[in-house]
Amino acid sequence: MKGTVLYAPGDVRFEERPEPKIIKPTDAIVRISVTCVCGSDLWPYRGANPITEPTPMGHEYCGIVEEVGSAVKTVRPGQFVIGSFATSDNTCPHCQYGYQSSCEHREWISTAQAPRLRVPLADGTLVATPEVPSDELLPSLLALSDVMGTGWFAADAANVKPGGTVVVVGDGAVGLLGVLSARQMGAGRIIAMSRHESRQKLAREFGATDIVAERGDEAVARIKDLTKGTGADSVLECVGTPESMMQAISSTRPGGHIGYVGVPHGVELHGEKLFYTHVHLHGGPAPVRRFLPGLIDLVWKGKINPGKVFDLTLPLDQVAAGYRAMDERRAIKTLLRP
Amino acid sequence: MKGTVLYAPGDVRFEERPEPKIIKPTDAIVRISVTCVCGSDLWPYRGANPITEPTPMGHEYCGIVEEVGSAVKTVRPGQFVIGSFATSDNTCPHCQYGYQSSCEHREWISTAQAPRLRVPLADGTLVATPEVPSDELLPSLLALSDVMGTGWFAADAANVKPGGTVVVVGDGAVGLLGVLSARQMGAGRIIAMSRHESRQKLAREFGATDIVAERGDEAVARIKDLTKGTGADSVLECVGTPESMMQAISSTRPGGHIGYVGVPHGVELHGEKLFYTHVHLHGGPAPVRRFLPGLIDLVWKGKINPGKVFDLTLPLDQVAAGYRAMDERRAIKTLLRP
Repeated sequence: MKGTVLYAPGDVRFEERPEPKIIKPTDAIVRISVTCVCGSDLWPYRGANPITEPTPMGHEYCGIVEEVGSAVKTVRPGQFVIGSFATSDNTCPHCQYGYQSSCEHREWISTAQAPRLRVPLADGTLVATPEVPSDELLPSLLALSDVMGTGWFAADAANVKPGGTVVVVGDGAVGLLGVLSARQMGAGRIIAMSRHESRQKLAREFGATDIVAERGDEAVARIKDLTKGTGADSVLECVGTPESMMQAISSTRPGGHIGYVGVPHGVELHGEKLFYTHVHLHGGPAPVRRFLPGLIDLVWKGKINPGKVFDLTLPLDQVAAGYRAMDERRAIKTLLRP
Repeated sequence: MKGTVLYAPGDVRFEERPEPKIIKPTDAIVRISVTCVCGSDLWPYRGANPITEPTPMGHEYCGIVEEVGSAVKTVRPGQFVIGSFATSDNTCPHCQYGYQSSCEHREWISTAQAPRLRVPLADGTLVATPEVPSDELLPSLLALSDVMGTGWFAADAANVKPGGTVVVVGDGAVGLLGVLSARQMGAGRIIAMSRHESRQKLAREFGATDIVAERGDEAVARIKDLTKGTGADSVLECVGTPESMMQAISSTRPGGHIGYVGVPHGVELHGEKLFYTHVHLHGGPAPVRRFLPGLIDLVWKGKINPGKVFDLTLPLDQVAAGYRAMDERRAIKTLLRP
């Protein structure tokens, strides 16, 4: 089969790759219905992470189980499944506490921009839908594999409560779905930081009540203004740069919570400064598996439509164009059809 | 009157100071019954914080109200009161959220190692005891002004829950009272990190179930061992050095909570590393005012005896010897009697 490989910054190729096979009895092979490009794929694509060798790409997926190893008990061939970008046994202590993305046996899925995928620890990683979904549900179900699960975790980690005031830093797909998540959790006010009109529009559609287009100190002043000088109860940091993290910290009231899910790049936190802000800080790679059953249910019942973040759909063999469109911010997120 | 002034590292003097007076109608003047030396006083005493001019010292106090300004309504002359090291109006949004040490009108108490003290925002800062206490209660009531309130906040910020596993980093007075706090909150297991026999003994008396005398990687290995490889649910960071913070982070399970109350000195947190630990981080200057009524009640009823951390009592005019004893670790904490 052919799959996606990153050779160097800007150099994405769709080329011959080995067919995935069952290696361990806990594996499953999934025929991918739809996959996509993640905002975090842009870090190496832009040269922010070193690429030391040709690197297969892709960690968001959903599709039909083709084959399972002899030890797999909860999913079976023919089922439609969604899995997290981090595999989990879902039985170790970390998993039982709800941190499946820190599972003792975690592996990172990294070859999902391809027609077929081996998923280790299938029982603990994959969740089947009630039945095989219609085509129109596919984008929203795919979103649960990472981007929606990550936006949800940002809101959860930021302790979003009914009636609370929320700020979302970052208008990428994760930030936009952070807005949707905060709305689902009953936030009273959701301030989305965005300077791009199309993204502002989607943010409002997802539930943003206010848009702040300013940046830096001006943005902080604007948020303080919108919160009567107090700062927000909950802030979702969905970028991962030093600027976005400072923006998040400065927007939070003392005792408020920051949920940070943008993979930090160059972020250093000064202990003493952080101390006097009195913020709560929590984040990391989203434990998507914890949220999958609930989120599948919301999508299945039509209560949320996170698939709206996909504003470009391409055949999988045009994956390179999909990266380019996101890199140039012509697309929020690219969906790929094998 | 005479009061305590720090001139340079190691140079503490007890010298003539102006008598405190009511300046604002919200002030009170308190005749101090007992005061003490704080672990944080040792930072400038040891030269870790710069001393640019002769600096009055002391921020832990309790005593009898002598005089109140015209606007003070909730405390009156003759009452015995305890206040926080941070003043608060107890009405602003930050106070209402329970973060009185981030009050919009906060001032830092800084002249309490003296016989008399002006306390701004008396109504929002001071809490009176049911009646004037007996002498034997004084050390424990004094402890509530900072060290016990701070240990309690560390445990609260670290989300200590009944049955949970707790690690306390730091065997100073705050760490020891963090042990006591975790015990009060029902922790199932309390691992105190200490290599000093007298402090280990007090830690056990306060409720520690295990002592770890190792440091660095060995200490982390020992804690992992004691927690079946998982790490602790709650970790109290009561020191403030890069080493102690790393110790705390490495001892916490993914999804676990760190409450950090040691004022950070030289602590820099690497964003990406922190991200993958999945810890919750919360701390800052303890909002003692939030906890004062409940803690006074516990002391008054004899349920806790935090005053045990005072293992040296001196007349106030020997304050310099009190600093020296703590600096040389001959005393855990020095109580001073005017």
